[in-house]
Amino acid sequence: MSETTHPTDRAARLARAKAVLGASTKVCPPNRATELLEAVIAPGDRVALEGDNQKQADFLAACLAKVDPARVHDLHMVQSVLALPDHLAVFERGIANRLDFSFAGPQSRRLAELVAAKALKVGAIHTYLELYARMLVDLTPQVALIVADKADRDGNLYTGPNTEDTPTIAEAAAFRGGVVVAQVNEVVDHLPRVDIPAGWVDVVVPGPKPYAIDPLFTRDPAKIRDENVLMAMMAVAAVYEPYQVTRLNHGIGYATAAIELILPTFAAQRGLKGKVARNFVLNPHPTLIPAIEAGFVDNVYCFGSELGMERYVASRPSVFPVGADGNLRSNRALAQVAGQYACDLFIGGTLQIDPQGNSSTATKGRITGFGGAPNMGADPHGRRHDSPAWLRAGEEAGERLRGRKLVVQMVQTRQPNGAPSFVERLDAFDLAAAAGFALPPVMIHGDDVTHVITEHGVCNLLRCRSLEEREAALRAVAGDTEFGKRQNTDMTEALRRRGIVMRPSDLGIDAATATRDWLAAKSIDDLVTASGGLYTPPAKFRK
Amino acid sequence: MSETTHPTDRAARLARAKAVLGASTKVCPPNRATELLEAVIAPGDRVALEGDNQKQADFLAACLAKVDPARVHDLHMVQSVLALPDHLAVFERGIANRLDFSFAGPQSRRLAELVAAKALKVGAIHTYLELYARMLVDLTPQVALIVADKADRDGNLYTGPNTEDTPTIAEAAAFRGGVVVAQVNEVVDHLPRVDIPAGWVDVVVPGPKPYAIDPLFTRDPAKIRDENVLMAMMAVAAVYEPYQVTRLNHGIGYATAAIELILPTFAAQRGLKGKVARNFVLNPHPTLIPAIEAGFVDNVYCFGSELGMERYVASRPSVFPVGADGNLRSNRALAQVAGQYACDLFIGGTLQIDPQGNSSTATKGRITGFGGAPNMGADPHGRRHDSPAWLRAGEEAGERLRGRKLVVQMVQTRQPNGAPSFVERLDAFDLAAAAGFALPPVMIHGDDVTHVITEHGVCNLLRCRSLEEREAALRAVAGDTEFGKRQNTDMTEALRRRGIVMRPSDLGIDAATATRDWLAAKSIDDLVTASGGLYTPPAKFRK
Repeated sequence: MSETTHPTDRAARLARAKAVLGASTKVCPPNRATELLEAVIAPGDRVALEGDNQKQADFLAACLAKVDPARVHDLHMVQSVLALPDHLAVFERGIANRLDFSFAGPQSRRLAELVAAKALKVGAIHTYLELYARMLVDLTPQVALIVADKADRDGNLYTGPNTEDTPTIAEAAAFRGGVVVAQVNEVVDHLPRVDIPAGWVDVVVPGPKPYAIDPLFTRDPAKIRDENVLMAMMAVAAVYEPYQVTRLNHGIGYATAAIELILPTFAAQRGLKGKVARNFVLNPHPTLIPAIEAGFVDNVYCFGSELGMERYVASRPSVFPVGADGNLRSNRALAQVAGQYACDLFIGGTLQIDPQGNSSTATKGRITGFGGAPNMGADPHGRRHDSPAWLRAGEEAGERLRGRKLVVQMVQTRQPNGAPSFVERLDAFDLAAAAGFALPPVMIHGDDVTHVITEHGVCNLLRCRSLEEREAALRAVAGDTEFGKRQNTDMTEALRRRGIVMRPSDLGIDAATATRDWLAAKSIDDLVTASGGLYTPPAKFRK
Repeated sequence: MSETTHPTDRAARLARAKAVLGASTKVCPPNRATELLEAVIAPGDRVALEGDNQKQADFLAACLAKVDPARVHDLHMVQSVLALPDHLAVFERGIANRLDFSFAGPQSRRLAELVAAKALKVGAIHTYLELYARMLVDLTPQVALIVADKADRDGNLYTGPNTEDTPTIAEAAAFRGGVVVAQVNEVVDHLPRVDIPAGWVDVVVPGPKPYAIDPLFTRDPAKIRDENVLMAMMAVAAVYEPYQVTRLNHGIGYATAAIELILPTFAAQRGLKGKVARNFVLNPHPTLIPAIEAGFVDNVYCFGSELGMERYVASRPSVFPVGADGNLRSNRALAQVAGQYACDLFIGGTLQIDPQGNSSTATKGRITGFGGAPNMGADPHGRRHDSPAWLRAGEEAGERLRGRKLVVQMVQTRQPNGAPSFVERLDAFDLAAAAGFALPPVMIHGDDVTHVITEHGVCNLLRCRSLEEREAALRAVAGDTEFGKRQNTDMTEALRRRGIVMRPSDLGIDAATATRDWLAAKSIDDLVTASGGLYTPPAKFRK
């Protein structure tokens, strides 16, 4: 199942494409795109459809869903993200029957239904970086359907700020004899810059409208609650400060948005400017603007961009990876590598944590997938360079020959719907049994987690010397959940004396003053102001 | 220390370059290259000099070593490999005083001397992938000195088969406001393909002669000994076969070359064709030719190329990543990702193993560095997709929620000089103490190793349930070394009954028939013949 397309087969596919395009052009009119796909895709092909975390090759996805299943069938889809109904339509219509993917987000419920109905077989669920790796090795695509902002008539591509997965997918296909088809918003005479050379691209299809893209990394400061601020303060006081965390990655969510917004206030007051949170691997979160403007942040390396942040990013070329053309170039594959190997801290939220500290965002009836978090939220055993944060974490864990990555999970003890976040058994186990997975989809493994932060305090799992201690530490911060009530107070106090459990007061934090007042921006408007008017929020975030 | 070059600073550097080049060209004559470097490099810069595992920007390295230290000084070199005397001359001449790197190979002794003499300070020693990651985050280069085969007059670059690190270094600098200078063998009107777009490249310098490149991955089959064949047979019988290892990476050396050469003979006889060793992440090892020609190998993804293999690789485009131009494109960064996340096995040799199974190639008086092995020879905790090999290894290790990567170390119990390979304490500890490193440079950590193979047998560390068992298993295969003699026979036999220790006979192998006769090619000439005359060995491998 890992054949590369043979050159003669590639030539035959391109000859069929020429019959659709005419002999002298790489540009396919949108109304012939379905026909083009029928010409270049063969039954049984592995097809890499660019569904990214943010941008989508939506027109090509729609065209693929319309091909004649009598001609094109048994496809094996290799795709980072299933975000659109058309991403599932190929299975519903009998065009594809096999899927290897990373994240299903809004399509997670329908995906679970289709798997249950045996409309498709899931090969495996991956992190982003694993999927790219396999596209180079044993899931090499015969056809890649990618997306970019602009093409020139030769087929050079300009991705704009949301470069994301495109170069990696193109490389995986173009250098395995695959056929690369690119949806673009427009075909122009001169590109601002070349992100992907024309020689890697076989056909360009101008879409009938700009490609779909989602502002996934925008969090409205108005929705951050006092509890988020309290937990953010504890993260700074219990982790960023003592470990001197300069290089880090934040997950998505209000918990980490709160951290970003108290860097110029709370963290600055603790004298941490220039000492922590200097180098981020992160999408351009709007909530990072105040910290950048305060000079807290040296630079940010980006997986993708964020809608509305384009002008701000372009005007901060000493912070973001901006090219000579003046625009961001992001790169999801390299940013995942940077998140894994050049960061000392990953901090993010979760839905459920079990007594061993395993955490999961899986819920019954949905096949959500992993995205990128497990790659960054794991201790990379292949790391060899040291840093103060990494060495200190290793020492606390009793490591003799290596350091440890700091992996912090922030979670309120109850979810917004009242369900407890701490559970004796993860829903992931039931999901795995129902879907026939070999292993439950654990997002972060307990032995990789170093700290858990709730509104009741922080536990430092590095200092635990047994599974029993780890469990007791977790119960100590689980509040009034059933999980937390099983803990006896003496044990909690013993752990507190050993510095394993820390209450806000142990960290010099007065919980009563842990309010939204610390936020450097309290609304989207404040972020726009902080950006000097350069940030342009998408419509759904405007009043 | 992680500032990005400010755009106005970049503009000033390019203006100074124009004064050297003349206004209308990107091409710098070789006799003005030193002057050019003095124009674009500022004191205190981080400079990424392309020293790869194979190819070298040797002319730019020589020019850099000749700049006036009164004008250019206090440089911080960020460089994968220190291979050439000029790579150290910059420290000897007071041009640079800080170094972050991955591997020092032939310069390891001189590097240790310069560190001892305080001529430079080593920031950290990295794996390749870590260094690239840091070049994007906190070791962003102000200037990158890279190397490629050809440029056109616009500055587009063609790397040829040895793409290696070039695109990654160029991206790290070009999108941080850095200045990118490329040494090329020739400037032409039309490139076979574009590997790096002109917009990422500021200046092109045609070198006075073709860049230096080393055939590092060529092993002469004539030098493979019977013991290597025996160990290779055990690797196949004890690991490849039971775990159904289809996706894998081999280290460099005669031990793994022997495996490559018995795939079409011994492994085929055991019925393993199509069942094991189908997808390699590997440079184009000449010793892989017979297995490829026997149809044993589906495909190979490449870190770099190998001198002499160009025509063979180009004529096997369904095996290697070959572009529409007909030549290999390799990619060290992506191949390291593939080696980490898309392979179930890493197997390689080492110099020393200690009672915990830690292994190291460090020796006193040399600062060698890591290269890529630790990245691939570690259990990647971020991996989430499963495979039969990974699941079986996890089960044997008693893992409940994850699989395990197979990490196999092959070592004869004594090195060619008679020194024991098994030691109570690694030399790496003394080296670390002497050089002032925080941690000893352990190549593969004991808890990541799953199997150790010597000429006396195989031990499966996955099945060990304590550090004492692990140690006993290692002593059981350590032969007549002092390390091995400390083991009592009863313990060894007990481990053998439990399948932890396997002798050749336990694997159905008659050690008496484990000879060079199994090798599918016994000489370089045999490899040429197997390639149909397409492999052209470098002079030093010809009779």
